[in-house]
Amino acid sequence: MKKIRISIIGFGVIGSGVAKVISEKKGYIKSRHGIDLELVGIGERHGSIVCEDGIDPMEAYDLAKSREMYKHPCWKEEMSGIDVVREVNADIVIEATPTNINSGEPGLSHMMTAFKNKRHVVTSNKGPLVVAYKELKRTAEENDVQFRFEASVGGAMPVFNLVRESLQANKMLGIEGILNGTCNYILTRMSTEGLSYEHALSEAQELGIAETDPSYDVEGIDTACKLVILANAIFDMDATYKDVEVEGITGITPESLKLASDEGYAIKLIGEVRDGLRVAPRLVPKDHPLAVGGTLNVISLHTDLAGEITVTGKGAGAIETSSSILSDVINISKYEFEGT
Amino acid sequence: MKKIRISIIGFGVIGSGVAKVISEKKGYIKSRHGIDLELVGIGERHGSIVCEDGIDPMEAYDLAKSREMYKHPCWKEEMSGIDVVREVNADIVIEATPTNINSGEPGLSHMMTAFKNKRHVVTSNKGPLVVAYKELKRTAEENDVQFRFEASVGGAMPVFNLVRESLQANKMLGIEGILNGTCNYILTRMSTEGLSYEHALSEAQELGIAETDPSYDVEGIDTACKLVILANAIFDMDATYKDVEVEGITGITPESLKLASDEGYAIKLIGEVRDGLRVAPRLVPKDHPLAVGGTLNVISLHTDLAGEITVTGKGAGAIETSSSILSDVINISKYEFEGT
Repeated sequence: MKKIRISIIGFGVIGSGVAKVISEKKGYIKSRHGIDLELVGIGERHGSIVCEDGIDPMEAYDLAKSREMYKHPCWKEEMSGIDVVREVNADIVIEATPTNINSGEPGLSHMMTAFKNKRHVVTSNKGPLVVAYKELKRTAEENDVQFRFEASVGGAMPVFNLVRESLQANKMLGIEGILNGTCNYILTRMSTEGLSYEHALSEAQELGIAETDPSYDVEGIDTACKLVILANAIFDMDATYKDVEVEGITGITPESLKLASDEGYAIKLIGEVRDGLRVAPRLVPKDHPLAVGGTLNVISLHTDLAGEITVTGKGAGAIETSSSILSDVINISKYEFEGT
Repeated sequence: MKKIRISIIGFGVIGSGVAKVISEKKGYIKSRHGIDLELVGIGERHGSIVCEDGIDPMEAYDLAKSREMYKHPCWKEEMSGIDVVREVNADIVIEATPTNINSGEPGLSHMMTAFKNKRHVVTSNKGPLVVAYKELKRTAEENDVQFRFEASVGGAMPVFNLVRESLQANKMLGIEGILNGTCNYILTRMSTEGLSYEHALSEAQELGIAETDPSYDVEGIDTACKLVILANAIFDMDATYKDVEVEGITGITPESLKLASDEGYAIKLIGEVRDGLRVAPRLVPKDHPLAVGGTLNVISLHTDLAGEITVTGKGAGAIETSSSILSDVINISKYEFEGT
């Protein structure tokens, strides 16, 4: 049995969701994979919980939900997230602070500090990956630790591990996909119900699928960020946000969707890495694997041997995203880390 | 650099295709994965090629294509496939003889012999898996070697490695999918062109997508075999062909497809593992990830954390299938085998 010590930095929806899933899946992961996951540190905006003998992840989850983390016996108000990364003896740091696509902070500093302290990093945080992928990758390699980010693109949908563990003999020729569930939901509702863009958007906002300020999603910014991560990680490019040609979905009318549908096509916001990086609405034949509805995400990988391999899944949700985070944690624990 | 010695047993379309891909990808796999694949044995119906210093895989491929394998300097007419498995010092045996779903032979004997001689097995051959999965698995475990069969279901489409390496924290709740490209092609053509079953079938036969005797495909037998493999490998069941309730596509009319289409549905031959094992035509909403057209294969995995994860790809073709076979070979070489 390998004991793997984990810190979680950022304890919002994703971070606390991971703790909940660790609690629920601890026995399964032990018996199935021979890995004993122990939570030893939690870094939060207002302080930290640190306990070298192990934190009960469900207790921490419950306290986070009721905003009473300060009541935990191991609460340390003076300790910041970066202190936890540096000082707590964790094998793997799960970085789950909010995405900042301009500076990458605070995630970027958390990750760099983790690497320099010889800790593996698993993250769902797109910001640092968009801003400084190459630097992060180089620093991880220099310190002989792993850097995994399956959850950063497409939530539960496996992409990076799929390429790494199932398509190893293939050269990747191109990628295209629906990488934003909000846009997919809006376009699906406009198409199936004939709703206007404004109507579908406000419906999505009421359901919590779109933000009050929806521009990050509907203008294609989120899709572009995910495309940058795919390009860098899978094609070994050195792209940043400014390399992406971006067009969103705000100009699409129910009439154009109807016309397309009559001809057997759906209109989808597609992110594509081929000669360059491009986000734009595109026609997709209805029986093509990319033509999925609702809030689903989907990615098609164009390869030299396997041809086109497409994977579809839920792009958001704390429990769903935890599936990808734990996949990375288990892979590191099994293959890369000599446990105690 | 790990040197991995390989034998290929069965040198028809798939076996010789793997040799071709090994030849083309040798450099890529060396530089990318640090694995030097060396072909040391080929077992064929009429004899074998054995060369401990390595066989040029492209030369063997060319000789197989022109049916002149006996011209190879290392040709041994008296040596059978099972002799190669037993006597040639290979780390991994790739078993690619034709599928026999009644006895599993000759593949079953090849695999059992490989395990008892401490050789890992990678296969695309459904027969032995349908007939004797548990026995094969137990024998591999007893001999501390690996048994991998990604190519046996869905050709290039990753399923087993996806579950193993991307969904490790998940409990599998159910599986459904289109597992036969011939049926999917016929139903797609009937639906989009309004063709009769007979017309679509004869078109598929002309294109080489359907066999002269199409019953193995259109009556759902092939789908049922793949379902048995999925049930045993992913749900740890002990199913055989007789446990599957099977209905094929021969009774489907263009009228029923048209009616379904008008309501936003496609009719697809779906194999399903849930409470039991079942193959039957089913209605699928057109924007559902399972509703893919042409000869594509698709599988949806229902999981407790990630929700529904769907993967689509080409279910046939020698080069495509080689992608899955080499994925298994590379995974064994990287993680399981202490190379020389």
